[in-house]
Formats: sequence, structure tokens, C-alpha cells
Amino acid sequence: MLRPGDTICAPATGKGGAISIIRVSGPDCFSICKKIFFPVDRNADVLSLKGYSIVYGEIKAGDEIIDDVLVSIFRAPHSYTGEDSVEISCHASQYIIQKIMELLINNGATSAYPGEFTQRAFANGKMDLSQAEAVADIISSTSRAAHKIAVNQMRGGFSAEISKLRAELLHFASLIELELDFGEEDVELADRNDLKAIVLKVKTVADKLASSFKTGNAIRNGIPVVIVGKPNSGKSTLLNALLSEDRAIVSEIPGTTRDTIEDTMSIDGIMFRFIDTAGLRETTDVIESLGINRTYEKVKQAAVILLLDEITDAPDEINDRADSIRKLIDEDQRLIVIINKIDKGSSELKELERKIRISESEAKIFISAKNRTGIDELKKIIVDTSIQEKLGSDDVIINNIRHFEALKNVSASLGRVIEGLDNSVPDDLIAIDIRHAMHYLGEITGEITSDEILGNIFKNFCIGK
Amino acid sequence: MLRPGDTICAPATGKGGAISIIRVSGPDCFSICKKIFFPVDRNADVLSLKGYSIVYGEIKAGDEIIDDVLVSIFRAPHSYTGEDSVEISCHASQYIIQKIMELLINNGATSAYPGEFTQRAFANGKMDLSQAEAVADIISSTSRAAHKIAVNQMRGGFSAEISKLRAELLHFASLIELELDFGEEDVELADRNDLKAIVLKVKTVADKLASSFKTGNAIRNGIPVVIVGKPNSGKSTLLNALLSEDRAIVSEIPGTTRDTIEDTMSIDGIMFRFIDTAGLRETTDVIESLGINRTYEKVKQAAVILLLDEITDAPDEINDRADSIRKLIDEDQRLIVIINKIDKGSSELKELERKIRISESEAKIFISAKNRTGIDELKKIIVDTSIQEKLGSDDVIINNIRHFEALKNVSASLGRVIEGLDNSVPDDLIAIDIRHAMHYLGEITGEITSDEILGNIFKNFCIGK
Repeated sequence: MLRPGDTICAPATGKGGAISIIRVSGPDCFSICKKIFFPVDRNADVLSLKGYSIVYGEIKAGDEIIDDVLVSIFRAPHSYTGEDSVEISCHASQYIIQKIMELLINNGATSAYPGEFTQRAFANGKMDLSQAEAVADIISSTSRAAHKIAVNQMRGGFSAEISKLRAELLHFASLIELELDFGEEDVELADRNDLKAIVLKVKTVADKLASSFKTGNAIRNGIPVVIVGKPNSGKSTLLNALLSEDRAIVSEIPGTTRDTIEDTMSIDGIMFRFIDTAGLRETTDVIESLGINRTYEKVKQAAVILLLDEITDAPDEINDRADSIRKLIDEDQRLIVIINKIDKGSSELKELERKIRISESEAKIFISAKNRTGIDELKKIIVDTSIQEKLGSDDVIINNIRHFEALKNVSASLGRVIEGLDNSVPDDLIAIDIRHAMHYLGEITGEITSDEILGNIFKNFCIGK
Repeated sequence: MLRPGDTICAPATGKGGAISIIRVSGPDCFSICKKIFFPVDRNADVLSLKGYSIVYGEIKAGDEIIDDVLVSIFRAPHSYTGEDSVEISCHASQYIIQKIMELLINNGATSAYPGEFTQRAFANGKMDLSQAEAVADIISSTSRAAHKIAVNQMRGGFSAEISKLRAELLHFASLIELELDFGEEDVELADRNDLKAIVLKVKTVADKLASSFKTGNAIRNGIPVVIVGKPNSGKSTLLNALLSEDRAIVSEIPGTTRDTIEDTMSIDGIMFRFIDTAGLRETTDVIESLGINRTYEKVKQAAVILLLDEITDAPDEINDRADSIRKLIDEDQRLIVIINKIDKGSSELKELERKIRISESEAKIFISAKNRTGIDELKKIIVDTSIQEKLGSDDVIINNIRHFEALKNVSASLGRVIEGLDNSVPDDLIAIDIRHAMHYLGEITGEITSDEILGNIFKNFCIGK
């Protein structure tokens, strides 16, 4: 798929607006540009201008003036792709963009594939593969949390972690292979206890990274929240109260409009996604009781479970319902016990306050969904219990299923190494598993790669990136 | 509306894509930028960098990295607005764009109104008003012809013409006003014959420009074409044949899709708009005969009238129909006599060829709409008869109703001057009419202006332009 001799071009900005950018990258970009672009300053020459400078002039098709443009010059290797590049900033007219693209192509450039600029940046060592993937994530990120993970990954935080792990394994892999070269002489260059300690350490980090995928994936797609409770406890009123305060940014993002089956809500830059809100929005409650299979499935999918009770419910009844949820969920899932309709009675409040017991990872709150009392506090609790602690730290969070699968493979290979060391398996078999682990780590950063992997990654990029 | 002390900012590119540009212009743009942008090269400083250079670095909100960006520096007066300006090129994420806009505003910039960058360019003498208007036309132009008119206007072709007219009048206006200062002394500084000759010349040019509005407006909105003919002559088949060859560019332009009531077709970069195609697309012909009132209205609206006849029609019948059209149209309108269904008989062809008479400005063609014979030739004829001659010349074509109205006022004022000179009207009244004409000419270029005019012009611009 790579064609480094070709000069590629593509519009890089969205449709509409006032300005459009056309990107050109490759060995002939300056000479092609010179044929269609005429600086107002007759002494200026794109062939000789230095990098990081801008020229003003005209794009012409023969005698016909197409547009007044700004041309930005970038010289290899100091460009996004690492190649000679220009960016043509023109008026945002579809006619002008098409005409400039035609001129570039007629003068020797070729239309870029999706992601081809970034693939060239990768091929030219400007970024590794996980950083290239982060570029696409940055562009599509719509929340503060998703953006933070993508920026960290683009800036090499994750790559650095992976490279460190790989380097630690490489040392021992080399020593063991050296031992194998000595054959029958039974030389032990690599201390088996040291090796086991390193492998354990690398496996632990790989497992931790892999387990962060659940969080990363949730941030990427919205953290799943479910509202459960008996009929008429006010589930749809609560959903409306939570969503109505939603800030404008969400509504501008495609796919998050209210008329889709999934309602989303952005709190403090983090996206939450309500499971099966279509059901909640029907006038009659679809979920008749906690016992039915469908609720069970919904609860299993959620990161946050909002259990909605009423102020007039008996304390034991509420505790029983909470217990039945606790049986369904694991330690990663967060239960919030909500006592609704405090507008209907305050005498019960103190007793419930005392008798509803929750664990440390859980939360309890009294609200009136109808009057919107306690809704802001509930939102804060949702953020705090679900994600805040994980985002607050500087730990690397992965959000890419390719990385997740590679890390799972690393962990499995290293598990076999440890098992092998414990059971005195022959060194050559151990060496193979270490090499496997290193291979999978290399796949993440792109040190090891294949056309298929690259094709899959870059085909999902947009044109012009 | 102008607030030159303020530094304004706005996203200037469309939604989506890989890259977005945020424009900042005004006295504080560098100092605001310095607070949120940190060059990778620590020695680089936006405060001291020279114009037309680019810096690479990070946008930060406190410790949080928002994005890696390129910042382009423009120093007054060498920028689009004529002020100090920067353009921030960031990843095209809605989150990043919103965040950078927030940072700019929190550090002292203010969100730009639609068209405010161009209005500043006008206020700072970078372009006159008609050039500013052309910027919006260029962005919205979707065809070669509309683009050509807009580019010519943006580059000052029209302004130069208007300024020349105004300068010619100014000379005589000054002389006459000088005469008036002498009061009773009866000095004649301005030769009345010379004055009349100049006024006539300016009026002729103004009239010619005003009359070009019909063409300009047609190019802007699509040149109106109508197909008329007796029932079953094949009108809808012809329409389909014409449209089916249409190139892709048209279908990408909003408002030109086939499901609207008006079908459009782009030939050789010129847009044609079919009048009342909804009627043609119905299975039964709505237009029952040429005599009915509705057809009359349709023909009056069209620039090109396609009269569809059949090869089996008698020559006299065809000539009669053509004559009845000729009675309805004026010299600006073009009649094309089309003889359809040549697949049904060739024996009649020679006779019709001989007996169907057309004038020099008209055209005649034999086709088979069903077999698509002669369709390309017909298209060429449509372009040639309707517009090619007008576009081919370097004459200025106006397409703006504001300019049209101003030119009409110029012409009316100068008409009164000529009448006055012929009837020895007092000099002070003649001087007033000359001043009026100059006023209207000045309104076009913006030498004379009002907040209301400016408000009307710039409110229709897009944000970021």
C-alpha cells in the first residue's frame, strides 16, 4: 500500500466554513506546486523557500485565476509526514477545492488514501503505530476524558511503557539464546530467578494495562449507566431530570442526539450512556421487576447501576433490592442507591438514612426527580464513583481493542514462561514464549507489523489525515 | 458594529475533516496566543516571530495538553484583515476546537461575528465593499461561471470600472461647484458639451453593467431553461436524457438534488435550471398546448426555450409553433427548435431541414431523445446560444442586486443631468444630480457607506470569514 515515490494530495478540512486546506506531501510537492501556484512576490519561489514559511499568491489553471491562496512550506524531515509537504489554504468553495485537486493531479500528484499522510508519518519514523492510532482517536474524541487518553497516547506515554517492557524482556531473551548457542555446555548466563522476577513484573504491567481497557473503552463509547427499580418509582422522570441539564456540546456531536435509542449525558467532560432508555421513555415501565432476565442483562452491561427506590418504601425492602443487585455485579461495577420522592414525605428520611446500609464503593442519595432536588449531587456521585479516581491518576489507560488483544497475548505467553520456569521446561521452549511476548508488544508500537494490520488501521482514517 | 480594539476569534473551517483552523485577529492576538501556546522550540516566541512564518507547539490549559498545533503568524498590515493575526491549525475534533476557543476567550479574545474578519479587511482598506462581497460569492460559488464572475469581482475588476466612472464625474462636479461659488459672475469653467459627452458615456457604461445583471443573476442561480411542445412530443424523455449525463459535481451541491421541484444541469461549468420540471416529470403532460396561460408564463421566465417537435410533424405546423414562441420572447431570450424522434422516420428529415427556418440567434437540431442521439450536440447549442458569448469576453458581469440597484440609480441621476443640460436647468440642480450619481457609485465600492448597508452585507457571511 505504501508508495513513497508518489506525491499525494487531499482536502484536509471539513465541508463548509470559510477556509479549506489541501495537503500535498511527497518528493515532487514543490515542483508540482510551482506549476500551478504563482506568488504575488515575484522573487518568492516555492522551490527555494525555507520550511515553516508561508507564501501568498494565486492558483492558476492556464490564464484562469482559480483563487488567492496561502501556501505553507514544510521541508523533510520537519513535516507531519516527514516528507516535503505543502498546505494550500484556499477559499472554502467546493468548486475551488475540486479545481485545485484537479490541477495537482494533472501535474503529477495522486489522490491520497484515507490515513495515508499518517501512514507516511509512521513509515518515516515520525510516530509509532499506537501514536498514529491516537491521531484518529484525537480527531473523533468528543469528551474531555476520551481526549485526555488520546493525547497521552499520541504523545507516546503508552509507547514508552510498552518499549520499556520490551527492552526488559529483550535482555533476557538474548542471554537465553546465547546459552542455547553453547549447546551441550550447560552454561547459565541468565539467572533464572532474575528472569522469573522480570517476567512476572512485565506480566503484571501487561495485565494492568489490559484491564484498563474496560475503562478506556467505556470512556470512548460512553460509560454505560442503567436505571433499575420497581414500576412507578420514577425512572423516566429521573432520566429526564438527568438529561435536561445536559450541556450543549453533546447535542452537537453526531450520534448522540436524543432521538436515538441511547441517551447520553456529558458530566464534567465525561460521556455517560444510558442503557435501554427507549424502555424507560415508554409510558409504562418495561422492567416489571428486578427478577426478570432482561434487567439482569442490563445490569451486567452497566458500569454504574442506579437503583431507584421511594421514600415510602420499607428499609428492609430497599436493602433486599440492593442485595439482589449486589449478587449480580462484580467489583468493577458501581451501585448507587437512590431514594426518590422526598417531596412526598420527610418523616421517613431519618430512618432510611440510618437503616440503608451501603459499602465503601457504593453511594446513597435522597432526591426528588420531579422537583429536581439532588440531581446535581447525584451527577457528581455518578462521576466520582465510576471514573474520577481512574482518570485522576497518571496511569496509562488503553482504549483500543487491538492493543487489548495484543496485551492479552503478551500475558498468556509470559504465563507460559513462568509455568515453564517452574517446571524446568527446556530453554528453547521458554525462549520461544519470550519471543512471542516480545512480538505482541512490538505489534502494538509497530516495530513488528504486517500489511494486513496496517491496512486495517489506516482504512478507518479520514481522507486528508 | 466595528470594534477595532477587540481581538476576535472563530473557527474558520467546516465541521469534520482532519484539520481545523481557528482564526484570531486584532491588537492582542500575539499576547493572547503566548498565554496558551507553547512552541516546541523554546527559543521561538510568537511576540517576536516575523510574519508569514509557522511555529509548531502545544496548546495548553494549565498543565493539560489540549493539542499539538501549528500557529501561522501574520503581522499588520500584511494579513487578511490588515491587523496582527494568527491562524491556529489543530486536529479537527469538536472538543479541541471548543477548548481552544474557550482558552482564547478566557485570555481576552472575543468571539467573532459572521463576516467580521472581512469587515475588518474592508475597514482597514485591504479591499473595497464590492470585493468584500465577492469573497462571500467565491465561497458559495459552485460553477465555473459563477466562480469566474466572483474572482473577477474580488480582484477588483468591477471596482476599477466603477472608480473610473466616478473619477470622470468628479472632475466636472468640482468645476460646476466652483462656478457656483463665483455666484453671479457667470463664469463657465466646465464646458457643457464636454460634460454632456462624459455623462452620456458614464450612463452608457452604467446601463451596460446594469443590464449584465440579468446574465450574472442567471449564472448565480442557474440559467432558466424551459421545454415546451405539444403532448407526447417527448418532453420528459428529453429532460431525462439531458439530466442523465449530468456530471457528479452538481449532485454534491445542496439544493440541486433531483428531488427538488427544479432540476439543474451543469454543462461546461455553467448551471442550467429547468423551469417547472415537476410538470414534465408527471406521466401525463401538464402543458396541453402552447396557447394556455401557464406556458406563456414559463416562456417569459426562461433564458432558453426548447421547442420540441416531432419528425412526423408538418413543416408548416413547426414553423407556426416557432412563430408563436417568437411573439412571446424578447431579444435576450434564445429559441432552440428541436425535432425529436428521428428514429421514427428519416424520409422527412431532408424536407424539414430545408423548410424549418430559423433566425441567426436561434438554433435548430434533429435528435432522438429516446435513443439519446444528438443530446451532446444539443447541450453544446444550449451553452453557445445562451451564455458562451457573454462569458467569453472580458466584460464585467454583475450578479449582486445591491450593485444592480445602485447602477439603476446612477443611470436615473445621469438621465436627469442630460435632461437638465438640454433644457438649461440651473447649475445647482445639475450639480445635485451629478453628486447623486457619484454617491450611488460610491455605495458600490464602499467609499460611501452606512451601518445599515454594512450590517446587511456582512450578516450573511459565514463565521470565521
